[in-house]
Amino acid sequence: MNLDNIRIVLVHTSHPGNIGAVARAMKNMGIGKLSLVAPRQYPDEQANWRAVSAVDVLESAIVTETLEDAIASCQFVVGTSARGRRIPWPLLDPRQCAERIAPATGHGEVAVVFGREDRGLTNDELQLCNLHLNIPTSEDYSSLNLAMAVQVVCYELRMLKVFPGLPTRDAEQWDTPFSNSENMEHFYTHLEETLVDLEFLDPAAPRQLMSRMRRLYSRVRLDAMELNILRGILTQTQKWVTKARKQ
Amino acid sequence: MNLDNIRIVLVHTSHPGNIGAVARAMKNMGIGKLSLVAPRQYPDEQANWRAVSAVDVLESAIVTETLEDAIASCQFVVGTSARGRRIPWPLLDPRQCAERIAPATGHGEVAVVFGREDRGLTNDELQLCNLHLNIPTSEDYSSLNLAMAVQVVCYELRMLKVFPGLPTRDAEQWDTPFSNSENMEHFYTHLEETLVDLEFLDPAAPRQLMSRMRRLYSRVRLDAMELNILRGILTQTQKWVTKARKQ
Repeated sequence: MNLDNIRIVLVHTSHPGNIGAVARAMKNMGIGKLSLVAPRQYPDEQANWRAVSAVDVLESAIVTETLEDAIASCQFVVGTSARGRRIPWPLLDPRQCAERIAPATGHGEVAVVFGREDRGLTNDELQLCNLHLNIPTSEDYSSLNLAMAVQVVCYELRMLKVFPGLPTRDAEQWDTPFSNSENMEHFYTHLEETLVDLEFLDPAAPRQLMSRMRRLYSRVRLDAMELNILRGILTQTQKWVTKARKQ
Repeated sequence: MNLDNIRIVLVHTSHPGNIGAVARAMKNMGIGKLSLVAPRQYPDEQANWRAVSAVDVLESAIVTETLEDAIASCQFVVGTSARGRRIPWPLLDPRQCAERIAPATGHGEVAVVFGREDRGLTNDELQLCNLHLNIPTSEDYSSLNLAMAVQVVCYELRMLKVFPGLPTRDAEQWDTPFSNSENMEHFYTHLEETLVDLEFLDPAAPRQLMSRMRRLYSRVRLDAMELNILRGILTQTQKWVTKARKQ
């Protein structure tokens, strides 16, 4: 577990005090990289005040307009989610996520993304993520404060760093680097194009096809060579469709 | 683990806002019993405001003059402590503590005691405790906000209640049954055929293409619907190739 390769990403945070509390929670656990996607009110004195001795985390924070920009350099992305979405994504608890994140931090940056205080992440935002994390809260009161959620996740990451005792099942040595989220987006665009060319996907009635494809391929975590092969197959498929249409 | 037998005890808390944030953190994790030892400023609007929907926890909180009074009815007491006390107590992390607390909750009330925001618990107070808990914070910034510390400990207690089995729990809820190996073999045959049709795979020099494809799709663990979609794409691809060849 390389905590220097963890990036906490907050999307559309409303209250600057929460941003400060997040910075403190992170630094308490030895995590320093923070990105803020279009925060409503930032920079702000409240943020600095709640950060206490973690103002340096705020000062080095990166502010972006979109989530895509924030995670562009990350090769593995975890999104936090409440229970009970329409399409049931597999939800991992923070401990399972930490086990999946640990080996990934050996290869490059990993983002852990937290949504709005009141509504979390949208389905579109969750689709940009490889894994979905859910904190198992009580059914009587499931709405966790944003900084508390960050605290719990950062705590699990730190625990795995300090006590790596449990065998991390995902720590297989892999022969090729994993693809980053930018390349995955190019792949999804190419896949969608090809499915339209094949007349398998009707752009007027796409249903849930692309969500299902994203869910599938984000689960597998493609390496660079696999991504090249899949894109090669798509290109070759498009050639044959073009040829058939020419006559 | 019987969470109804857990009592969170806050000693000499300075800021009423922290008391409210503690109440919320507790209720989020399904813990409802709170005792306050000589809080500096309580009741207070700030406490209610930070408790959000956990005001009931505040309303049922017991206020006492001394720690002895607060823990009088408890048969097991855990005290939280920073590192590096003069007298070296054995310190357990929150996970180890949860494992010690769980069986004790079967017999009666267990107290988890948190000290002052600035100085924690005194040595005299720690001597009233059966066990000492330390959250493994970063050496660069070890001072955790009080409510954050309560959140982490309550989270560990809840995790042990929800997942008493411990480590690998990959049995995530999934909406569709996973495909069996027979169907996966049919898929690989169909995929190979299609790649040959596309002239992407040369049967005379197959190299490692199919091994790579098998490694990829066996890693993802396809469900039945995903498998149907992929086979549908292959069938549609073959149709276009046939059409192109007809002319």
